[in-house]
Amino acid sequence: MNWESAQDDLRFILFDVLRADAQLAAMPAFADADRDLMLQVIGEAGKFVAEVVAPLNAAGDSPGCRWQRGEVTTPPGFREAYQAFWQGGWPALACAPADGGQGLPGVLEAVLYEMLSGANHGWTMAPALLHGAYDCLRHHGSEELKARYLAKIASGEWLATMCLTEAHAGSDLGLVRTRAVAQPDGSWRLDGSKIFISGGEHDLTDNIVHLVLARAPDAPAGPKGLSLFLVPKLLPSGNRNGVHCERIEEKMGLHGSPTCAMRFEDATGWLIGEPGRGLNAMFVMMNAARLHVALQGIGLLDAAWQRANAYSLERRQMRVPGPRDNKDAADPIGGHPAMRRILETQRAWVDGARVLAYKTAIELDIAKQHPDESRRRGAQRWCSLVTPVLKAAFTQQAFDGSSACLQVFGGHGYIREWGIEQIVRDSRVAMIYEGTNEIQAIDLLVRKVLADGGAGLAALLAELAAELDAGRAGDADVLRRFSELRELTSRLAQAAERDPALPFEAADDYLRATALALLAWAWARIEAAAPAGVARWRQGATALRLRVLPEFDMRIRIVQDQCAPHASSQSSTSAR
Amino acid sequence: MNWESAQDDLRFILFDVLRADAQLAAMPAFADADRDLMLQVIGEAGKFVAEVVAPLNAAGDSPGCRWQRGEVTTPPGFREAYQAFWQGGWPALACAPADGGQGLPGVLEAVLYEMLSGANHGWTMAPALLHGAYDCLRHHGSEELKARYLAKIASGEWLATMCLTEAHAGSDLGLVRTRAVAQPDGSWRLDGSKIFISGGEHDLTDNIVHLVLARAPDAPAGPKGLSLFLVPKLLPSGNRNGVHCERIEEKMGLHGSPTCAMRFEDATGWLIGEPGRGLNAMFVMMNAARLHVALQGIGLLDAAWQRANAYSLERRQMRVPGPRDNKDAADPIGGHPAMRRILETQRAWVDGARVLAYKTAIELDIAKQHPDESRRRGAQRWCSLVTPVLKAAFTQQAFDGSSACLQVFGGHGYIREWGIEQIVRDSRVAMIYEGTNEIQAIDLLVRKVLADGGAGLAALLAELAAELDAGRAGDADVLRRFSELRELTSRLAQAAERDPALPFEAADDYLRATALALLAWAWARIEAAAPAGVARWRQGATALRLRVLPEFDMRIRIVQDQCAPHASSQSSTSAR
Repeated sequence: MNWESAQDDLRFILFDVLRADAQLAAMPAFADADRDLMLQVIGEAGKFVAEVVAPLNAAGDSPGCRWQRGEVTTPPGFREAYQAFWQGGWPALACAPADGGQGLPGVLEAVLYEMLSGANHGWTMAPALLHGAYDCLRHHGSEELKARYLAKIASGEWLATMCLTEAHAGSDLGLVRTRAVAQPDGSWRLDGSKIFISGGEHDLTDNIVHLVLARAPDAPAGPKGLSLFLVPKLLPSGNRNGVHCERIEEKMGLHGSPTCAMRFEDATGWLIGEPGRGLNAMFVMMNAARLHVALQGIGLLDAAWQRANAYSLERRQMRVPGPRDNKDAADPIGGHPAMRRILETQRAWVDGARVLAYKTAIELDIAKQHPDESRRRGAQRWCSLVTPVLKAAFTQQAFDGSSACLQVFGGHGYIREWGIEQIVRDSRVAMIYEGTNEIQAIDLLVRKVLADGGAGLAALLAELAAELDAGRAGDADVLRRFSELRELTSRLAQAAERDPALPFEAADDYLRATALALLAWAWARIEAAAPAGVARWRQGATALRLRVLPEFDMRIRIVQDQCAPHASSQSSTSAR
Repeated sequence: MNWESAQDDLRFILFDVLRADAQLAAMPAFADADRDLMLQVIGEAGKFVAEVVAPLNAAGDSPGCRWQRGEVTTPPGFREAYQAFWQGGWPALACAPADGGQGLPGVLEAVLYEMLSGANHGWTMAPALLHGAYDCLRHHGSEELKARYLAKIASGEWLATMCLTEAHAGSDLGLVRTRAVAQPDGSWRLDGSKIFISGGEHDLTDNIVHLVLARAPDAPAGPKGLSLFLVPKLLPSGNRNGVHCERIEEKMGLHGSPTCAMRFEDATGWLIGEPGRGLNAMFVMMNAARLHVALQGIGLLDAAWQRANAYSLERRQMRVPGPRDNKDAADPIGGHPAMRRILETQRAWVDGARVLAYKTAIELDIAKQHPDESRRRGAQRWCSLVTPVLKAAFTQQAFDGSSACLQVFGGHGYIREWGIEQIVRDSRVAMIYEGTNEIQAIDLLVRKVLADGGAGLAALLAELAAELDAGRAGDADVLRRFSELRELTSRLAQAAERDPALPFEAADDYLRATALALLAWAWARIEAAAPAGVARWRQGATALRLRVLPEFDMRIRIVQDQCAPHASSQSSTSAR
């Protein structure tokens, strides 16, 4: 079956639930982006993705990318599709007009990338990395570097990478060893090896711009000794730089994206930002990058649902329990309760997740462009607190939910031809990259929520609560959850004074509880906006309540139990 | 890292927790199988698996099996290992001495297959199918057929298959179309196509014995028109039969086991059992086969834990929170709370699951061999009720838990060389075959528990409760769960009278609640048997209570909510 863009759903969520047009109209930067223009962009994006990108998804998995003597060949059709993509102006959608971009709201870019990821995760990895590099260079690059590289990156004519990880330095970038030595002409000479570099080498574009984390010889150990450098594949002279792709990894999935081991040997680079501030230069793009990974999760889960739903309407096995008005030997499995359970649960996640992710994209726009500073600060708080939650929760659900959708196919789900097992394999990586989901949980609870004793989260929840009506049963349920989450946060803050390791132990469950409270809020907004009597939304709300939200109470209880004295297992490593 | 057999754990669970020796000694058939002999068998099995079978696991994944012109080549080393396996007498371990077997208790076979599956799931698929074929032929085959085939199947000199599924008939075997026409000489002529036939063709043995579900021309539609036939690859004359392997499937994993599309064309076969009783002939082996799949889940989860645990002790990233007595830049990740959480949770599952699975294997032995009929009936009840629970719960945990273990490796988990992603891919199929996990749930709740209004389950729980001591906190907790499960069952039975579809909707959650109540019981037994002060078991009990059992309360609540009137989503197919 073919991937389809759900234009009606996107329109409903963006405009009826989130009133994106009204919110964006408050910002002069988006004065031209009215509802009609946005709808047109989303419509064209859906067409491009369905017609050009989605059909290449299976070839991305097999044959996938091939490495030979340092060069990487992408799957058939990938280069042509990418050329059409950047020449169509898609990468520059939300870039500044000064850099050749269209200056449209980032929320449109978010919708575009959700579609692209669902249709073809592997292909989408290539352009997905552009946007972070653009932001990073724009904010921290010298004028000279910007003049040379910014427009090419904005347009997507040249693709970009992030070269952070080394074999011994993954979640802990402070251990990075790649060396950078200043040269008399102001450039730097880089030597070292990086792994897990998505798009480190390929044939999609003529040049590739690497952003490389490295350490100057006199820099201190740890994260504060790291600087960021721009290292192009081709030097301004046109010569090849000392940048070599030594292999691509054999992975569980995502074969459409080459994961490269890169060797920098006598490579020429230029400093981005200040020495020793390499991690800071990258943090400018962290929320946007994590939101994009959350959107990958949504896109992949929706794609899995699309396949499973279509199959469930065709495939006939056994009779549905209960009264029946036909004598067929078997009914479509979509009518069987066990299959409805799977499908309705995933829809509840996708629909609610879209509300949260698009809202976050709008808040990112507000944080950058709103004329009112207090509004910008509020948006910044939303992005800082909510983005790690969405990244972890939606990527976990993409994997769990696409596996549930695989189950709808029975044995057919386990074989390649139906495409559903590819989604399970592809989606798994999103729980790891851009900060593992465990890192997201620590970021949320330890670095953010508890850093101000829960005040920021309480303020955020109070703002969301203001939109609810305690007289409505659904809204009252959300308010109850918000209050439990606040209470749990206080309890954790107290318990952490006694045991500083406790928040690290409770972080994953705490993040899940937060995600589910936000999802409940999102569905309350959907219900408030949904036209009466539309089965689709009523069904989703029921599935959420019956199938998804009970986990909220479980997570709250797990964290509460951990806060009780002597709850932890009292030994520092796992014994057998 | 290499797979290792956990001899100490097996000994503790079999003898200290389950008192397997005392239970088996009550049966004359196992008079010779004392503790020493059993320990010796398990020790030798562990050595064989570690030395001969485990090293072939990676090759099973890649290159995997290859198909060419109807013939299947298994991965390098597979044939040699299989020849050593059957010649070593392993397949015949628990077969009747009259058939050339060793007549040992089935629980030893269970332990053997758990090890084999964990070490090399793909390779193990081949011999795993022998045992069902042996039971089926032994109980239902004519004397002539048995004389010709039983000893060769018992010894494993010839391998066997189960040919059930057709393209349009998976969970619903009543739709099977393969035709069988009686011939004047007493044989039958079979024509039709089967899919998903594990080991349908290979180079491990000279002959392959297919058990094929087919329909005589005058047989009624539906399941009652199906008969079972024995169709060998090589006829007694030595000529090839009309049995053709048309392709092997490209799968998500399990590449070491060829999943064949088989065409029977003018094939000669012989009826097993009575015409129209084909499904019954197969049901004789259903509990044993499902238990073996549950054991696959345990073996795979333990193998995933082994890899992740070893990695967590070597890999260093960041410092563990809390006071510390060294100045290293980074600590082993096994000390980080997020990693301990993953590892301890999986151990709690594996250890508790072993108690339940080995107990079930002993009950199967009792059901077959105990001199006391009421004891046999009780054992039969245990197997009938508990086996679907273990199959579904342990295969789900193998997938979820091995994915959690993959997370311990960070990005390294997603690439092939560490072997952990193979376990995730391989384990996924066990949720589907031998009856999907959704079918197991319906079997448990609809066909078994509610069929007698919950009386059988209540009796089983009462027997388990008798071993507990309400004065101990851990035991009291288990008794509380048993009582909630009984109450929920009554409530479901009542609600089902109003809405017959309800048990189908609630079945999956009900099965999970049952699994977790049983797991809690298993851990209460472990705690009662564990020597005081051993960190390993205390840690597992804590992880179970903090991390695993909260799901029990969640599932209970989900089913309760479904029992409330008007809880379901009121429409018969999933709408978008």
